[in-house]
Amino acid sequence: MPTDAAKTIEDRIRAIEDRLEIYNLIASHPPSADTGAQSYIQSIYTEDGLLDLGGAKRADGKQAISQIVTRPEHTQAIKGGLAHFAGLPHVTIDGDRAVVTSYLQILAPHPSADDIEVPGHGASRGYRINRVGANRWELVRTPQGWKIKRRAFRTLDGSQGALDILRQALAPSPSDAKPATV
Amino acid sequence: MPTDAAKTIEDRIRAIEDRLEIYNLIASHPPSADTGAQSYIQSIYTEDGLLDLGGAKRADGKQAISQIVTRPEHTQAIKGGLAHFAGLPHVTIDGDRAVVTSYLQILAPHPSADDIEVPGHGASRGYRINRVGANRWELVRTPQGWKIKRRAFRTLDGSQGALDILRQALAPSPSDAKPATV
Amino acid sequence: MPTDAAKTIEDRIRAIEDRLEIYNLIASHPPSADTGAQSYIQSIYTEDGLLDLGGAKRADGKQAISQIVTRPEHTQAIKGGLAHFAGLPHVTIDGDRAVVTSYLQILAPHPSADDIEVPGHGASRGYRINRVGANRWELVRTPQGWKIKRRAFRTLDGSQGALDILRQALAPSPSDAKPATV
Repeated sequence: MPTDAAKTIEDRIRAIEDRLEIYNLIASHPPSADTGAQSYIQSIYTEDGLLDLGGAKRADGKQAISQIVTRPEHTQAIKGGLAHFAGLPHVTIDGDRAVVTSYLQILAPHPSADDIEVPGHGASRGYRINRVGANRWELVRTPQGWKIKRRAFRTLDGSQGALDILRQALAPSPSDAKPATV
Repeated sequence: MPTDAAKTIEDRIRAIEDRLEIYNLIASHPPSADTGAQSYIQSIYTEDGLLDLGGAKRADGKQAISQIVTRPEHTQAIKGGLAHFAGLPHVTIDGDRAVVTSYLQILAPHPSADDIEVPGHGASRGYRINRVGANRWELVRTPQGWKIKRRAFRTLDGSQGALDILRQALAPSPSDAKPATV
Repeated sequence: MPTDAAKTIEDRIRAIEDRLEIYNLIASHPPSADTGAQSYIQSIYTEDGLLDLGGAKRADGKQAISQIVTRPEHTQAIKGGLAHFAGLPHVTIDGDRAVVTSYLQILAPHPSADDIEVPGHGASRGYRINRVGANRWELVRTPQGWKIKRRAFRTLDGSQGALDILRQALAPSPSDAKPATV
């Protein structure tokens, strides 16, 4: 991203502030999911936001999306120690739109493994990684800050969905998105 | 975080530099813990810094905090392959104070699992996640840069401590910190 | 990193843009490895780039480095659900050079564990962490943006290689890189 000489100082600072605001938005996803923060989740999606978890697992609109964390099974997962863990995201901003590609782990305490101790760090059954996947977040700038218009999540298990999300992060344009070797 | 029009260019650049300095501070925690870097750890806490790991596990003052990594059991954990792994942090800055909320995994090589090979990536017994938890870092600006005044860490196992830390990250003000669904 | 008063606004914005460009560069590593994106990988190394994975496992030049992901075993790993997972990196920039220190997990679906369900999040055999290690990325500024001149990766298993990488991240100068307690 060599700096465009034509950009003003204001443009450049704004682009940087956008980036940092987006980092915080993405960083707020695990805390919102792991505490079931319905009203917060509603506040970060656009009215017509879409959550696409693959197949039939989708929710349309910020109301429906935010209600997922109020379901009894989600509350049960939180009581069991649900943890979403976000890696370093890749961010591209184009004016009032942005795309973020990020890895996510979904973890929970292992229910049945043997206790093992790490010296000085206590003994535990440890945590299981239930799922690892790729997120594609399509964001839009609104008067109330950056919001999520669409989040797609696909499990990394060799299937095309996750690979397509990851390839798109590397492509300067759609025509470059084709994989070299898979 | 819509930009406040009243802020000067200097204010805005300073806020951005603060944010990036804080990212590096948080990113230095795993290397300091995993190498037992006592003098470095001492340098990033305030004189009266507090480390609160829950229950009776706390250390008062940068001297006491930094000595934890010099204990024989910590050295033994390092020899075994101790790894602290930090996720994307959530950062809010308010003048000369900042709060960072971050997820952390504590890992070590599995001592007894079967060797499994990932093609092209070698065989290993793999790593165990001993613990997953939430950190709340309370930082202050000092003439020597941002330093840690208080770090609280709680394991994500369904207990209130970790949930409270995560909820606070989402709350614009303390009165908003109440959970909707748990 | 207290701000140097002598720096111009241009210098400071440039340094910030460098940092954000570098975050994206590091964030693009997992997607490139997990999709086998040979041409992309070639584009982010310098002509004489070096990949040093320890011992005899090294590749000289961007051509050789990028070909690793085209090997049959790497393609097989991708089909099995290979996932590189990057933690928050530590970045230091010095003019046209930069050093990034980052943790990396290498994951894959567990081939044989029992299915366990996390309520509301599906059942799975879970993922295994095949390896956890430390990266040292030595970057240089080029007319086409920041590129990788050398990447060293060492497994965190108590051996010196990874500890040395992590210690260097904390050292303001080479003479400070000596460990206090290991």
